[in-house]
Amino acid sequence: MTHRPATLTDIRALLAHLPVADAAATQGAVARNAQLTKPPGALGRLEELAIWLAGWQGTDTPRILAPQIAIFAGNHGVVAQGVSAFPAEVTAQMVANFTHGGAAINQLAKTFGASMTVNAIDLDRPTADFTQADAMSAADLLAALLVGWDAVDPKADLLVPGEMGIGNTTAAAAIACALFGGAPEDWVGRGTGVDDAGLARKAKAVRAGVARLTSREALAVLAALGGREIAAMAGAILRARLLRIPVILDGFIACSAAAILHKSAPNALDHCVAGHASAEAAHSRLLAALGKQPLLSLGLRLGEGSGAALAIGVVKAAAACHSGMATFAEAGVAAG
Amino acid sequence: MTHRPATLTDIRALLAHLPVADAAATQGAVARNAQLTKPPGALGRLEELAIWLAGWQGTDTPRILAPQIAIFAGNHGVVAQGVSAFPAEVTAQMVANFTHGGAAINQLAKTFGASMTVNAIDLDRPTADFTQADAMSAADLLAALLVGWDAVDPKADLLVPGEMGIGNTTAAAAIACALFGGAPEDWVGRGTGVDDAGLARKAKAVRAGVARLTSREALAVLAALGGREIAAMAGAILRARLLRIPVILDGFIACSAAAILHKSAPNALDHCVAGHASAEAAHSRLLAALGKQPLLSLGLRLGEGSGAALAIGVVKAAAACHSGMATFAEAGVAAG
Repeated sequence: MTHRPATLTDIRALLAHLPVADAAATQGAVARNAQLTKPPGALGRLEELAIWLAGWQGTDTPRILAPQIAIFAGNHGVVAQGVSAFPAEVTAQMVANFTHGGAAINQLAKTFGASMTVNAIDLDRPTADFTQADAMSAADLLAALLVGWDAVDPKADLLVPGEMGIGNTTAAAAIACALFGGAPEDWVGRGTGVDDAGLARKAKAVRAGVARLTSREALAVLAALGGREIAAMAGAILRARLLRIPVILDGFIACSAAAILHKSAPNALDHCVAGHASAEAAHSRLLAALGKQPLLSLGLRLGEGSGAALAIGVVKAAAACHSGMATFAEAGVAAG
Repeated sequence: MTHRPATLTDIRALLAHLPVADAAATQGAVARNAQLTKPPGALGRLEELAIWLAGWQGTDTPRILAPQIAIFAGNHGVVAQGVSAFPAEVTAQMVANFTHGGAAINQLAKTFGASMTVNAIDLDRPTADFTQADAMSAADLLAALLVGWDAVDPKADLLVPGEMGIGNTTAAAAIACALFGGAPEDWVGRGTGVDDAGLARKAKAVRAGVARLTSREALAVLAALGGREIAAMAGAILRARLLRIPVILDGFIACSAAAILHKSAPNALDHCVAGHASAEAAHSRLLAALGKQPLLSLGLRLGEGSGAALAIGVVKAAAACHSGMATFAEAGVAAG
């Protein structure tokens, strides 16, 4: 068991020595896949998903019995720049909605048999407006990373990190722009539904935030521009890696958290699959930067982990087919 | 309750007077969707799916509690032309695999809580080789359509018709070519994995089958070229329509069955959604001809209803979000 990090230096040290997938389990799953009662390759991406799960679960017959959806919420000082169609109060209101079971993510958790945890992080203490100052101090950043670290259930066999935070598409755009370059306009989108003027304010805020940066090191970028919920998702994805729990990435904001890890260590997202392509314009660009092909493309742009939660069904199906199907020999079927 | 058809003329009469979706339930669902705790449109295609379900289930809060997967199997005389990578015996072997729970579709049914029925139709009496004679007599066609009709559980709230039949991508290609035109080469694909020579034999068989046709009327095409499992799927989709049960269409072969109904009545597939885009090359072309956008695109090309079964999760999620989410008023969330 990996010790809980006590400093950002500890986090950096963990990122430098990440565990990798179990090669024997991966090879066992490849061999099993070739014997199952179907034409070779006929289950398409379900086959590669099952083999990927096998490597992280360390068995040639992976199962998804205990998926966890971990939602993190934070508030953003940058909303002062007029970057959202909704008021900041909605973050806390939606957290209450999660708690009472009324949000989309609650229905998706029930549909796919996932447990769901919700961490509202200092909602009454928004991050600083990143156009004016660093969003978080180093201490605040570490605390938020550890909220994510602590939220992961070590008994989970699949993790979906999700988020809620009015203003957070702007924070995510700023992080992506800082890490991958390009113009602010390449990374901002409509979010919950801003108009053209709001979109221009988002680009302006991103430009100002990125211009303030004194370092492009990933955790420094996260402190300067990120939200607490984004940091928490990064902490959760890292913890999942150390626990060898496979992760489904959600949309633009969750992928901005993942991008922090990716920039810190190029193999840091090997235990992650992209759940969906969000309708938020820059998500496809961000997925391409992460080298991930989304499983679903259904026009969602809600956050809450919803697109990734929808993909739990696909990942469960992949494990179920791989581990439950008969082999040609078992079924007495001619192998073609 | 619609009477069970006794003749092909009865089938044609049913197709001429199909029930339509419930307009009041559709409108009620549109109104409800606008009040749910999410930005407008943020659930993407899940929103249109829920509204579509509402129309067919006749309620503004649709639910998927009893999905049914109905599998039909048939054997094809056209295998004499060397069109499959697998021997015809595999049809019966795979039916046994379905019965014993060892196939991919069994695992998918379990994963998504669907019941599953299997109808093996006269496997010891293949259809005639359609390059030489009509595949089925009118009596055989009616019998096969009624196998599908009878297989639908009137208590199901969602139907996935699926199939197994060595040689049936060739039959489906011939049907599609007859109904929609184009060259045989446009409609044939690798199926379970034929090589280039096999692909050429498939195109040659399709060309010969289509050249033999004396009528392009849809049921005449089905008798001349179809398999019993294809006719049964058409019968099941029609019966589902009369029972107002929404249907998820699977891949190329299931869509060739749907195409028979589509050509008979342009609105005949309004209760159907396309579950996935198969890797079988001509499926996208066939979906375009049917005017359907697939929900999933994961490279599957197995048949058995597997791609549509995978989409049960998406359709369930759509219903669950729509019918289970709180409204802005209920949750006390500001509506932006």
